[in-house]
This record gives sequence, C-alpha cells and structure tokens, in this order.
Amino acid sequence: MVKAAIRGGAGYTGGELVRLLLGHPEVEMVGISSRSHAGLPLGKAWPQFRGYSHLVFAEGEPLRAAEKAEVVFLAMGQGEAMELVPRLVEEGKKIIDLGPDFRFRDPGTYTEWYGKPHTCPDLTTGAAYGLPELWRTEIKDAKIVGNPGCYPTAALLALAPLAAAGLIDPETIVIDAKSGYSGAGRQPVEGYQFAEAFGDFRAYGLPRHRHLPEIEGGLARFFGREIKVTFIPHLVPMARGIFLTAVAELTRPCTTEEVLGIMARFYPGEPFVHVLDEKTLPQTKAVLGTNYVQLGARVDPRTGRVVVMAVLDNLGKGAAGQAVQNMNLLFGLEETAGLTATAVYP
Amino acid sequence: MVKAAIRGGAGYTGGELVRLLLGHPEVEMVGISSRSHAGLPLGKAWPQFRGYSHLVFAEGEPLRAAEKAEVVFLAMGQGEAMELVPRLVEEGKKIIDLGPDFRFRDPGTYTEWYGKPHTCPDLTTGAAYGLPELWRTEIKDAKIVGNPGCYPTAALLALAPLAAAGLIDPETIVIDAKSGYSGAGRQPVEGYQFAEAFGDFRAYGLPRHRHLPEIEGGLARFFGREIKVTFIPHLVPMARGIFLTAVAELTRPCTTEEVLGIMARFYPGEPFVHVLDEKTLPQTKAVLGTNYVQLGARVDPRTGRVVVMAVLDNLGKGAAGQAVQNMNLLFGLEETAGLTATAVYP
Amino acid sequence: MVKAAIRGGAGYTGGELVRLLLGHPEVEMVGISSRSHAGLPLGKAWPQFRGYSHLVFAEGEPLRAAEKAEVVFLAMGQGEAMELVPRLVEEGKKIIDLGPDFRFRDPGTYTEWYGKPHTCPDLTTGAAYGLPELWRTEIKDAKIVGNPGCYPTAALLALAPLAAAGLIDPETIVIDAKSGYSGAGRQPVEGYQFAEAFGDFRAYGLPRHRHLPEIEGGLARFFGREIKVTFIPHLVPMARGIFLTAVAELTRPCTTEEVLGIMARFYPGEPFVHVLDEKTLPQTKAVLGTNYVQLGARVDPRTGRVVVMAVLDNLGKGAAGQAVQNMNLLFGLEETAGLTATAVYP
Amino acid sequence: MVKAAIRGGAGYTGGELVRLLLGHPEVEMVGISSRSHAGLPLGKAWPQFRGYSHLVFAEGEPLRAAEKAEVVFLAMGQGEAMELVPRLVEEGKKIIDLGPDFRFRDPGTYTEWYGKPHTCPDLTTGAAYGLPELWRTEIKDAKIVGNPGCYPTAALLALAPLAAAGLIDPETIVIDAKSGYSGAGRQPVEGYQFAEAFGDFRAYGLPRHRHLPEIEGGLARFFGREIKVTFIPHLVPMARGIFLTAVAELTRPCTTEEVLGIMARFYPGEPFVHVLDEKTLPQTKAVLGTNYVQLGARVDPRTGRVVVMAVLDNLGKGAAGQAVQNMNLLFGLEETAGLTATAVYP
Repeated sequence: MVKAAIRGGAGYTGGELVRLLLGHPEVEMVGISSRSHAGLPLGKAWPQFRGYSHLVFAEGEPLRAAEKAEVVFLAMGQGEAMELVPRLVEEGKKIIDLGPDFRFRDPGTYTEWYGKPHTCPDLTTGAAYGLPELWRTEIKDAKIVGNPGCYPTAALLALAPLAAAGLIDPETIVIDAKSGYSGAGRQPVEGYQFAEAFGDFRAYGLPRHRHLPEIEGGLARFFGREIKVTFIPHLVPMARGIFLTAVAELTRPCTTEEVLGIMARFYPGEPFVHVLDEKTLPQTKAVLGTNYVQLGARVDPRTGRVVVMAVLDNLGKGAAGQAVQNMNLLFGLEETAGLTATAVYP
Repeated sequence: MVKAAIRGGAGYTGGELVRLLLGHPEVEMVGISSRSHAGLPLGKAWPQFRGYSHLVFAEGEPLRAAEKAEVVFLAMGQGEAMELVPRLVEEGKKIIDLGPDFRFRDPGTYTEWYGKPHTCPDLTTGAAYGLPELWRTEIKDAKIVGNPGCYPTAALLALAPLAAAGLIDPETIVIDAKSGYSGAGRQPVEGYQFAEAFGDFRAYGLPRHRHLPEIEGGLARFFGREIKVTFIPHLVPMARGIFLTAVAELTRPCTTEEVLGIMARFYPGEPFVHVLDEKTLPQTKAVLGTNYVQLGARVDPRTGRVVVMAVLDNLGKGAAGQAVQNMNLLFGLEETAGLTATAVYP
Repeated sequence: MVKAAIRGGAGYTGGELVRLLLGHPEVEMVGISSRSHAGLPLGKAWPQFRGYSHLVFAEGEPLRAAEKAEVVFLAMGQGEAMELVPRLVEEGKKIIDLGPDFRFRDPGTYTEWYGKPHTCPDLTTGAAYGLPELWRTEIKDAKIVGNPGCYPTAALLALAPLAAAGLIDPETIVIDAKSGYSGAGRQPVEGYQFAEAFGDFRAYGLPRHRHLPEIEGGLARFFGREIKVTFIPHLVPMARGIFLTAVAELTRPCTTEEVLGIMARFYPGEPFVHVLDEKTLPQTKAVLGTNYVQLGARVDPRTGRVVVMAVLDNLGKGAAGQAVQNMNLLFGLEETAGLTATAVYP
Repeated sequence: MVKAAIRGGAGYTGGELVRLLLGHPEVEMVGISSRSHAGLPLGKAWPQFRGYSHLVFAEGEPLRAAEKAEVVFLAMGQGEAMELVPRLVEEGKKIIDLGPDFRFRDPGTYTEWYGKPHTCPDLTTGAAYGLPELWRTEIKDAKIVGNPGCYPTAALLALAPLAAAGLIDPETIVIDAKSGYSGAGRQPVEGYQFAEAFGDFRAYGLPRHRHLPEIEGGLARFFGREIKVTFIPHLVPMARGIFLTAVAELTRPCTTEEVLGIMARFYPGEPFVHVLDEKTLPQTKAVLGTNYVQLGARVDPRTGRVVVMAVLDNLGKGAAGQAVQNMNLLFGLEETAGLTATAVYP
C-alpha cells in the first residue's frame, strides 16, 4: 500500500483527491491538512464523507500531515507549493503538485505568467510534466510531478495527434474552451453565487489566460517550433466538465474519417482516451467524475479547416484523476488502478 | 409621475425594484443608493442595465438619494430600515420597507424573532402590512408599509381562504416550502456558490425560521385565534421562485372541486391571484419575474387532508412586485400599473 | 464471479445497473438486452460507455441475454417483469425486479394500485421486499427480490426507527418528497424537456402516487397496524436525488438529540445509512451516484412535531444500488461489494 | 391598434410572441392558431398565461385565425410558411415569417440548404431580411419580412462593424456559438430531456448548420464579396440565451479600445444594441427575455486576432422580439414599442 497525504484538502481538487484515494485499492491515506479546516473532521469540509470516513484535518505546521507519507499531493494556490517542496524532496518523498509551480522547465516562464520569481528553480527544471499519454516515460522516474492544468490537458490531448502528423497549420489555431464552475475554485465570489451563474453563460480571462504557456509549450514539442494560439475560456452553468473546441487550417485536404483515424492511431490502447466515431460528438457528462477523455473531430471542407473537440472532467482527468494516474506511474502500480469508474449519467 | 427612490439598490430585491420602477409608466426614479456601490453607475451592480440606464448610485449620507422622492423603498438588512424611517416620516415621505422592521404591529414580536429592540415602536404599530389581496384598505392610507416576506405572502394567500371558511383545523397545519437561491441574498457564501448548489436540494433554517411569526400572525386573523404551524424551508437549485405546499386536516369531508371553488370565490377579480383548475398543478416558472400567484389544491380523501399549493416569484410578488403594488395603492394609481408583464417562459 | 444479465438496459435504472455491475469486483456481465436497442452496442444507448465497454444489446427473444446468467436484473415497465419471471424461476435463476411487480405479498394490492391482475400471484407472495436494512434476513434466501421504489426506500428508512420506538403518532404522518427528473424515466415528454423543466419546481402525481402502498405497507409492519399517510411528490430541476421530508406528531416530548440518537441506534453498523448530527441538515448531492442514505431530524418544540429527512440517489440506493446490494446478499458476497464509491461532489 | 394574429402559437417562438404582443401597447391580438392545440385555451399550451388571458387557439383551416388581422406572424417549421404566404399576400396582409422560408433573396440558396424547392420564389425575392440595425430601410415598406435566425442575428451584429471597417480578414473568421435549449424547439427528443441535458455541454450540427448561408450572405454585403466562415454551434444547459464568440485576424494592429470604439460608432443611438466597455465581458443573462444585444471585444496582440462576442436571447432579439421590432417598423410605430423591458436577473 502506498502511503499518501494531501495538503490542501478542503478545495475542490483536494476533495476529489480524497474521493479517489479513499477508493484506491493500493493506497492508504495517512494524512490530510488544510489551512481553513485544521483540527476539523473531514465531514465538516465535505458532505459526501459524512459518516463514511473518520479522517481529521491535521493541526500544526503545514507538513505535519505528510510525515508518514511516501507521496504528497499538493492542492494549493499558485506560489504555495514551491515553499513546501524543497523540504519534502529532502525527506525523500515523491511530490505531485496540482498547482502551476512545477509545470514549467523554464522558471522564467513561470515568472512571466504568474508574476513572481520561482523560489526553487532547480527543482522545477527537474520536474516532470504529468501528462502520461504524451510523456509517460518522463514521469515514471520523477521525484516531482507538475500536474497539468485542466485546459492544457484537454488542448494537448486534442491537438497533439494532428500536430505530430503535420496536418494542421500552427499559425491558425483558435481554441474556444468552456468549463464548469468548479474550475473557478471554492472561494466565494459574488459573480459565482448560484443565483448569478444559474442559466448564465459568459466569457472570462481574455485574452491572456494563465494556461496559455502550458498549451503553447506542449504543442511546440509536437510542431518542433514555438507557436502562439488564441485561447478563449468561458464558464458554463454546470458544476464540472470541460468542453474544448479547437479549430485550425488543414495543411492538406482530408476527410473527417481520416482525421479520426489519425487521432485513434495516436492513442493505441490508451485506457483513458477514447476517440469517437464520425457519427458521434462529445458531451461533457459522458466523462463526469472520471479520468476519461473523449475526443471528436469534423473536417469542414467548405473552409479547409478541422474542428477538434475534447471533453474531460476538470477535477478528474483535468486535476485529481490525472494526479492519481501519475502516482500509479511513480509507484509502478497498474496505471488504471483506482481510476476505472465510469461516469455517473444522467 | 410619482417620484421614487431606492435605498439598497445593489441587492436582489433592490435590483428587481429598479427593473420594475424603470418600466413603470407612472414613476420617475429620482435616486438610488447602496452602501457597496456609492458613486458607481447602475451597470456596475447590474449587467441587465448596462447601456440602458444612466442612473448612478448616490454618494454621501444614506438618505441623500431620497431627497427628491415622494416614496422611498428600503431594501436593506433587518434592523437598518428602522434607523432611517423616522426622518423620512418627518420629511413627509411615504415609505415601503422590504425588510422585516415594520411587519409587526407588536414591537415585542419583532424583538422576540429578530433579537433586538425596535428603535421606533410607535411607527411600527401604525404601519400597514402590505398584502393587498388580504388587507387592501389598511394599506391605502398608510404612511409606512411593511412589505411582507416571500414565504408569508405565499402561505397567507394559500391558506387564508380555507381558514376564513373554517375548512381546516388550525392545529394541523404543516407548511413545506421551497425557494430559489435569490431568496438567500447576494452576499457570497461558500455553500451557495454555483458549483455547490447546482444539482443539490437541501433544507435550511429548521425549525425556527423568522418568517414564522408573519405566517402565524396573519393566519390568526382568519382563524380568530392564535395558532402555531410547522414550517420547513428548503433551497431549490433555481435562481427564483417559491413553491409552497401546505397540508392540513379538513374539518368536514370535501372534494377538490369544492376547495378550489372556495379559493376562487375568495379572490374575485383579483388581478394577481389565479386559482388553477383541478387538472392543473402549479409550477414556479409560470410566474417567473412577475407579480402573479398561482394557487392549486387537492383533497386527499384517504386521509381527510387537503394539500394547498402556491407559487410566486420570491423577488416579484414575494418582494419588489408587491412593493410596487403597494406603491400603486398608496398613490391612487391603477393597482396593476407596471406589473402586468407575464412570465418569461421557458 | 457471479454471472449477471440485465433486461431493460437502455432506461435510466438499467444504465445505472450497467455502471455498477461493470465496476463490481465479483460480477461478470454475461448479457444485456433492451427492446429499443436490440443489436446495438452499449455506447449507442449510453455516452459514458463509449470506448469503455464492448457489450452489445442482445437480439432475439427477451430472455436470450439471460441464458448464461445466474442472476437476472429486470429494469422494465410495470407489468412486464411478471411475464418473464415464471420462466426464469423455472430455469433456476435468481431474479431482482426493479419494477413494482414483485413488491407486494398480496397480489390484490398490486391490482388495486397498478390496475391489472397479477399474472403469477404465487410468485409474488414468495418474493422478498428488498430493503436490506429493514428486512435483511428475508432477502438472503429469496429466489425473487422485489426491489423497492425510490420514495419508499427513503420513507421507510427515515420513519422506521421512530415508528418502531412508538415515538410518532401514525395518524399524523405527512410526507413531502422531492425528486430529480431521472425518476421520471427516459421516455421523452414535452413537460420534461430541458427548456421546460430548467429552473422550474412543480408538484405531480397528487394525491394517489403509486408508491403509497409500499410506504404504508412497510410502516404498518413497524406500527403493528394499518396506517394511511399523505404523500406529496414534487420534481426538482436536477438529474438525480431524492429529498424526503416527513412530519409527524411526537407521542411524547423529546429533543432533537434524543430523536437522532434513537435513529442512529436503530442502524448500528449499517454501512449505507448515516444519521447526521444536530448541526447538519441533509443535502442530496452528498449521496449523488451512491448507495448511501443520509438521515436528519429536528424536533419542533413549538408544535410538538418532529421533522425527519432522508436523502438518497433515486437511481442508486433508490434503484440500481439497492438491487446490487440485494444481489450481494443473495450470493453471500460482502454486502458492500461494488458499492463503496462516495459521491461525485461538487 | 394594429390587429395581429399568430400561426404556430404553441411552439417556443410562438409563445414568446404571445407574451410580447399581449404586452404591446399598440397591438390587439385578433387570433392565434396551432396545429397541436386547435380549440384549446391558451393556458393549455402555456402555464404563464393561465388565468391571465382568455385567448383560444382557433379551430378550422390554418388561416382562420388570421382573418381579422393586418399582420400575421408565422412561427412554423421550415417549408410550412411558403404554403400560406401567397394567400395572405393576396388578402393584403403584412407577413412576418419567423422560419427560414423568406430569408433568402435567391431561392436557390433556400433549396441548397433546406433541401426542397421554394414554392413561391417571386415572393422571397421581394421579401425583406428583418435585421433593422443593419437594413432598416428595406424593412419599412416590405410586405413580407423574413425574420432572421438567432445565430445570424448575433453573428451579423457582432461582425458587421469590423467587416464594414475593413478591420478583419474575411478568410479567417471562426464562429463558436453557444445556445440554450429553447433554440432546439419544443418537440420532445430523448437527448434534450432534462435529465440528459442537465449539467451537460455538447456540440451539434457540425459542420453544416443551416444558419450558415444567412451569416455568410449577410457578411458578404459588408465585405463586398462572397465569404466562407467556420461555424460551430453548441448547446448550453440553460433554457434561453446565445453567446457567440467570433475570432478573426486583424488587417492592421489595433487595440481593444479602438475596436470597441468602432463598434460603438457603428450603432449610434441604436436602442437595442449596447457595446460594453473594455472592462466588461458579455453574459447571456444580462439580456434574458429581452430584445437587447450586448457586444464585447478583445484584441489578442500576441496573435494579431480579435475576439468579438455577442449575447442575445434566442427567443427575444433572436426571434420574437425582433419580429415585433419589425412589426413596429412596418406600421410606423415607435420602434421600441412593447420591447423596452429589461432582463429578469438574477
């Protein structure tokens, strides 16, 4: 049994981690902590665990909960993980950070987009970017995994096959993304109150969302050169789910069937990535609460463009699910362990 | 044109008042203020008025916006209106208070349920309880109107006909009420964030909700004696609307048709109260955004009980709509002026 | 491995059964069929299984899919199961029927409430009513389990402790229940279209809902005599979940703490029933997608009544989850096998 | 008073027309009919009119309800209006068709996209395309108005200013649109049932949605040449509202402020079009139930593209609201008559 701890267990990604780790056949939860809930039982933060678990949020200094752990999940705000990671590394623990602090090999990128210097640049250079379907081998031996953002996970899984095949023009990529409100975090905000958001669809974060460098950096590895994309995030009145619609010009005429074939062959045997057939379009609820991704595509012969679509659960494959997948890799477990549940539908 | 001002224009009832008063053919809005938005244009508080209105929230002391007004609407937290009302009375203005401060003739009731002494008990004794369908004549000549709570409006309109007819046993009344989240106010709260409340149904405020004394006090006038009811409020994942289900034992055998007939005859020609037929059950969206109430009833011959149902919009007939109706009465306008729009459906 | 088959796999309870059985560690799905989807792959009926499962809905006569099964789940409309069950019994298979056909020991009750004669009255007399927390021993040796309705499961688990303790007056029980739309089935209906139901709360099925005889019959066993209750179902704009609010007069003065204590002691060690403390009220999303039930209660000392609340997932503990729990009992498996996942929240 | 009739009054656009016309100060409703509701009172089709209106759906042949009308609104399926219009023209009535039959001057376009020959090609050639902010003068003297589709209204209002200014490259336009479910009509469909669509976001209609020729044809008039765009529609779990996000390459460097200035100056004094400032992004609920459009824009200097956004209510400015605006123009009424209500928010 892998001994695991969570720091930041009262936010949405933290809560999803608890759910997945408590249900994981090879994991023992040895600690949890949260600035806001120190000393309180898990059920005070999360109604779904009332009566089910007797875990208590640790009191005392931030890493107390991690003492007995082999792997520590950090589900904290940006800039907080890098304060804790050096000591955890020193203590020989594996670290999976769900925030942005360890997603960039170049600490300069972090500083440019998050507005502050990185406090342990050596460590971020050595961290793995935890997107197993694209860079599995880099993850297996890592000490630190920078778990990808939800939008980058969707964008990279959707576009990597066509980028690798040279089928799309990198100068023409436009990404229109739609997320449920859990992606905005648990902190109360007037505009995210139920009565305000209910039945409302809106854009936000234009035109410089912080997930851009992850998307552009990841795609650059497949195109073999730096690229820039337009990225337009929106909020959908639903609790969970990302629907990502990417459009680009084809470099040669191509049918929908060919594009879907290229995508499917790019992910042979991948347990968590499913390419839909040409009669089926993705929908977010098909992957609700899971680590699965469904991909679709349509060629628009009138304009010579292709539309690629990805759906995932922003807290699942977009955060906690992928973090557990990375943990499975780090510890040599079956990669799908604890992650095979299908969506709660309808 | 009646000159009207609003104090508390950045909360949900305040915003609904703005909407209704701007659309009212006989009203001129002469001022608006809000603690949180002093000096800002209306569109900073309300997206629906962007580009539409050039109103600005007044700066300076709380009553500055009311200077030119003949009628002042107070849409504030409990205990705040009674601080302002004496001066407004002195200045000869009519007052419609949408909070609880002037709903009780007996200031002791206010103190018992709201936990603080009333600072102008003489004024509350003389205020009218603004539920026109039940006590219209009291309202017309009032200087101060205590605008009823949303649940009491629904409960009293639903039960008054049967109470007046002696058809239900006052010892047996159970009220199960369901409200949309706008009823909980605009202040951000973790549990009312979109992601938390979406797809969730819950109870709250048990067993001593502050609307109880209004409900019991109002029904007492029809039963001719003091009564106690059980009142159970719930929150529904929708922005607006109240569905109130009341159950009581019949004092004599009766059919659904008879009950509906008694209810319909109790409200002859009332423009805002519609009693549905025996094939139709109420639904909240039928009255969304309006000042209308729809009532239904079913006799359960197996148990000798009657189920009475009311739907209204908690911000409409349950707050701002009724406040405008009261203003129409105070100023001798057509009672339906500015209030005849039907629901936005679906 | 228990070999299981489903008849009626394209409706909501059928889909939930597939989800649970595919994730069950001790079950092998050997067949599935559906009148509407014969010959089609599972993913045509259910987006959540696309790419995940290669099951195909059987063609041919209705029981073809059940040929290799030891246990057959029937998720069909009323009156359809009783046509198939005699042959399944003959073939020695265990049967779990999720419809109403085998819920009543007295075939006359079935006829009275469902309007047609029972075609195999002998079999229904011998069937077990599958509510394990109340009648576990009856289930273990049954050949046929009549899986309870969603509302009766909630009502009986909520009220049985107080009925058994003689704490509530059986003449005074009023049940106000609220359900998500999946409870209404998958058949398209104009009033259940998204645009109509979204943001709408409504009552339905008054005053003679077909779940009444199950509720009254079950409670009668605890009260030791026949009873009648008032039951008022409503539809909530959410996909899943039941919130049941029951009110009754106490037979003696009692505190909330005492009531909760009695309820908790009634379910000692029950893995799926959690009684909340006096600071916590139930909410449906705490049990979304699970087999758990959360119970709450509040005494209203002003009226001498108690309010008891239950939340469950109508497709989980209210249907497919409970069916799997019953299967576990029938085959001597761990009762919680395949059912320990907690709610997807938020 | 203008005498108006509706054919197709039981669908969503028909219901919205009823709402607007009943509230219009200069209109008298003289007839309504619907294939599905002949002979029934309005309240059987629409809960919001129960107790409010005594209108009855006409029986008999389709145009019976139109006998006394000066203007007839047709809210029918494609291909149905062109069967009725010749006779209405002959009788001297003005016609506003909310379907696609009279939106194209070239009947060949109709045939190409709707798959059937036009039965009165002469009449469609002479019909006006009813988008007043762009082609007001053409509408005033028309006998037949082809009322625009909801997506084209949003797309054309958003992009016309930049197309007219030569600021965007017509070869690079990508439109990602999102609509509430009322846009899909009232006909029951399994996938649009509440339980299926709730909390789900999906794409549909790719890559050849029937609104494309309206969008491309309209833009062609501003670019001065034929163009092709990529159009990707999605369904949002809300009842009403369209959010349209259009992206294009700028033909010269430009700031967000400049773009917004150009847009605002393109619509001087337009009562229904509001261009938001550079700190505000559009949201659909700001225009719920209204005839208003809010426009926003952001330049992405990293890629040289501009993002233009429009929100409107698909049943309001996207259908019935615009139809009433067109009627006002046809009869020389104040263009805003009956259309000044602001959004029901929250």
